[in-house]
Amino acid sequence: MKVNHDLQISDSKLIHFLNISNLPKSYIQDIITRAEDIYDNSKVKKYNDKVVASLFFEPSTRTKTTFELASKKISSDFVNIDISSSSTSKGESILDMIKTIEAMNCHMFVVRHSVSGTAHYIAESVSSGISVINAGDGSNEHPTQAMLDMFTIKKHKGRFDNLKVSIVGDILHSRVAKSLIHALNILGTKQINIVGPKKLIPNNYSDWHVKYFSDMNEGICESDVIIMLRLQKERMHDALISMDTYYDDYGLNQSRLKFAKDDVIVMHPGPINRGIEIESSVADGPNSVILNQVSYGISVRMAIMSILFDNNK
Amino acid sequence: MKVNHDLQISDSKLIHFLNISNLPKSYIQDIITRAEDIYDNSKVKKYNDKVVASLFFEPSTRTKTTFELASKKISSDFVNIDISSSSTSKGESILDMIKTIEAMNCHMFVVRHSVSGTAHYIAESVSSGISVINAGDGSNEHPTQAMLDMFTIKKHKGRFDNLKVSIVGDILHSRVAKSLIHALNILGTKQINIVGPKKLIPNNYSDWHVKYFSDMNEGICESDVIIMLRLQKERMHDALISMDTYYDDYGLNQSRLKFAKDDVIVMHPGPINRGIEIESSVADGPNSVILNQVSYGISVRMAIMSILFDNNK
Amino acid sequence: MKVNHDLQISDSKLIHFLNISNLPKSYIQDIITRAEDIYDNSKVKKYNDKVVASLFFEPSTRTKTTFELASKKISSDFVNIDISSSSTSKGESILDMIKTIEAMNCHMFVVRHSVSGTAHYIAESVSSGISVINAGDGSNEHPTQAMLDMFTIKKHKGRFDNLKVSIVGDILHSRVAKSLIHALNILGTKQINIVGPKKLIPNNYSDWHVKYFSDMNEGICESDVIIMLRLQKERMHDALISMDTYYDDYGLNQSRLKFAKDDVIVMHPGPINRGIEIESSVADGPNSVILNQVSYGISVRMAIMSILFDNNK
Repeated sequence: MKVNHDLQISDSKLIHFLNISNLPKSYIQDIITRAEDIYDNSKVKKYNDKVVASLFFEPSTRTKTTFELASKKISSDFVNIDISSSSTSKGESILDMIKTIEAMNCHMFVVRHSVSGTAHYIAESVSSGISVINAGDGSNEHPTQAMLDMFTIKKHKGRFDNLKVSIVGDILHSRVAKSLIHALNILGTKQINIVGPKKLIPNNYSDWHVKYFSDMNEGICESDVIIMLRLQKERMHDALISMDTYYDDYGLNQSRLKFAKDDVIVMHPGPINRGIEIESSVADGPNSVILNQVSYGISVRMAIMSILFDNNK
Repeated sequence: MKVNHDLQISDSKLIHFLNISNLPKSYIQDIITRAEDIYDNSKVKKYNDKVVASLFFEPSTRTKTTFELASKKISSDFVNIDISSSSTSKGESILDMIKTIEAMNCHMFVVRHSVSGTAHYIAESVSSGISVINAGDGSNEHPTQAMLDMFTIKKHKGRFDNLKVSIVGDILHSRVAKSLIHALNILGTKQINIVGPKKLIPNNYSDWHVKYFSDMNEGICESDVIIMLRLQKERMHDALISMDTYYDDYGLNQSRLKFAKDDVIVMHPGPINRGIEIESSVADGPNSVILNQVSYGISVRMAIMSILFDNNK
Repeated sequence: MKVNHDLQISDSKLIHFLNISNLPKSYIQDIITRAEDIYDNSKVKKYNDKVVASLFFEPSTRTKTTFELASKKISSDFVNIDISSSSTSKGESILDMIKTIEAMNCHMFVVRHSVSGTAHYIAESVSSGISVINAGDGSNEHPTQAMLDMFTIKKHKGRFDNLKVSIVGDILHSRVAKSLIHALNILGTKQINIVGPKKLIPNNYSDWHVKYFSDMNEGICESDVIIMLRLQKERMHDALISMDTYYDDYGLNQSRLKFAKDDVIVMHPGPINRGIEIESSVADGPNSVILNQVSYGISVRMAIMSILFDNNK
């Protein structure tokens, strides 16, 4: 599907949350500030009369559960649409399904789908006053993940303009990586490195204001932040890359971590593959903030939902 | 199973909601009035100490989600029994399952099952003070759907005694149609037409105070209300009816709609099959109230649940 | 997995609920007293800021739904982790899954797993302040079931030291039986009989302070309490026992019930197999307290959750 990047802002207000690409810096900062209010100061606004519907066309525990808990914490009703037993399996179009759920007086859709642009397509179709959050669309974007990653970096590093951030793994297929690179650029990150085998790097990376390294040690040298991506075995197989070779070349282990700064933070969107992209001692070590990311994720999603509810009336 | 139509009223009070057949007019009017209080005047009674259990032995998104939302809006707890992982798959009888859930202090069962009479069978077995709502039993009835349809007609047309209502499609297999015809008759509808290929009309339709038309244009001529039923491909196949021929003969399109009154309303229980029983421009056009039906459905189900909770103590 | 029986008490306080084995008598009595406060006196403490996550790696309706309802009644949020769509199916370890859910600010895990010791393994790994409840681990224990059984016996018989309790069926594979025998012994039950074909009795039963009877009539003679276990067809098949023979020898029917005391109570953890281990007239008869057990189960689980929340801060 065509991805329309200009849907989410209307009348200078964020009314959907679909992509980091094209999102002005101030909107990202507003989300971080709101999430800090929630996480640090327990300033939580309540939305008792709002109903959130989740539509996950791809399986998910982490993201779906986090949205459910975020929704409960801001006191909105949360209803999980069971896709497998839904009428789309009987040939109903996604759009008819959405209009039906909207008619049930739902105010927000949280959508994950394997086709890029699905959340945008839905956002184009919903009525005024209804918000859509993209919880991952194909290989396009995963913007709430990027926002929780920005929150994590801000919390642990304070600022972006003096940071070197390295993203390691399958950049080509990763919607997380794409959202991340957009967000880091918008926030003025000093240097963004992407690291991985050439086959897993998109051809157009030169448009992205990043430096590419095929050598892991060089790619994470003096980094303040290392973000490891999750490997997917099928994609490795398709790219004719052996898992063993991959771990030797790009697995993050203790000895390799020494190339980065002493106070580097290690991030991962999860779920981690121990011994495939990351060594257990690193995942569980003092530099890892992987579980912190999960905790922050609830506050960040509460912040995004709250902002959309406030703006989209 | 044998369907006992006389279970739902006890001591002149509605204590279960199982079938429209045999339901006195005043009870239907009471439900509509209560739903109007909720929909128009936001008069919502709360049932904080009540627990509703849903048992859907057939898949459903629309009806199940609507009941879940209705339950939340009247502040009762809602618990969805996962049939696939339940003990009935290990050979437990439905009745033992019901008695067990009842022992968990549930006050209401919302039941859908492919066998006609299942909800009645359960209603016969539950203890005093427990209510059962039929959310569709085989090809028998789907009474809450009929009630939201009556609410829709009342809302848009004001009264029934001067209306011509046409129901189009597979009357034979449709529990929606059966509940509808009962309700329309009880409310004194002036004329009820049923329209469809002879193979999809029950033999005993002459008992129903309806007029049968095999010709669509005649069947919807001067109608105030057209209710399209959902086609099921397997049943068309079994009846040796081609989908193409069907759409030519019974699909509701713009040119055919002109045979009805100018202010006709077009209804459909959903999910719609665009281009199979209804043209998109009609489904989305000014005469369509299909999405309104979904919205009304929540208020109507809140009304039914409230009445049962009030009556069955 | 190795089952560590000494995890659940810390600083003289119950902080997890994993096994009856090794549990001091006063802790069992405290749970019963707390459940009586809830069941008899409606003294319910609220835990609005707590989040309970359920992880059922084996299917369950009864136990899972009871925990969900218990959680709602003490006002804690309940989130059911959908194992089938979770990342453990993508190779994530249970431990990483647990740490991730913990990072979502969950305070309690309710775990069922086919491998003995899983709940203990998880309890060893969670952070301080997080509690784990064992909802059944392999053939090891099912301690909340045993607690609701103790509550049932206490409620109907008042005391334990003058009781003869008979447990009938597949003792060998039953985690329910193991938890029961521990609990009955700890509470000072006068006599505990185990009854069943030799092939379904563990070799080490002599360690358990029980009397074994292969003859059903002798085994339930003058009993105050009969606890029937659920038979599993596959296990009967593996043990070369025919279902017909089993029912003839060990099925609880009216004539056999006469061997027990007149006021004997008949219990069963459910779901029951009518005509396999128990005759319908007995299951539904005046001596049966099978459905009462289900009702008590909610109060008992509320009590256990409340105690853990109070103790584990």
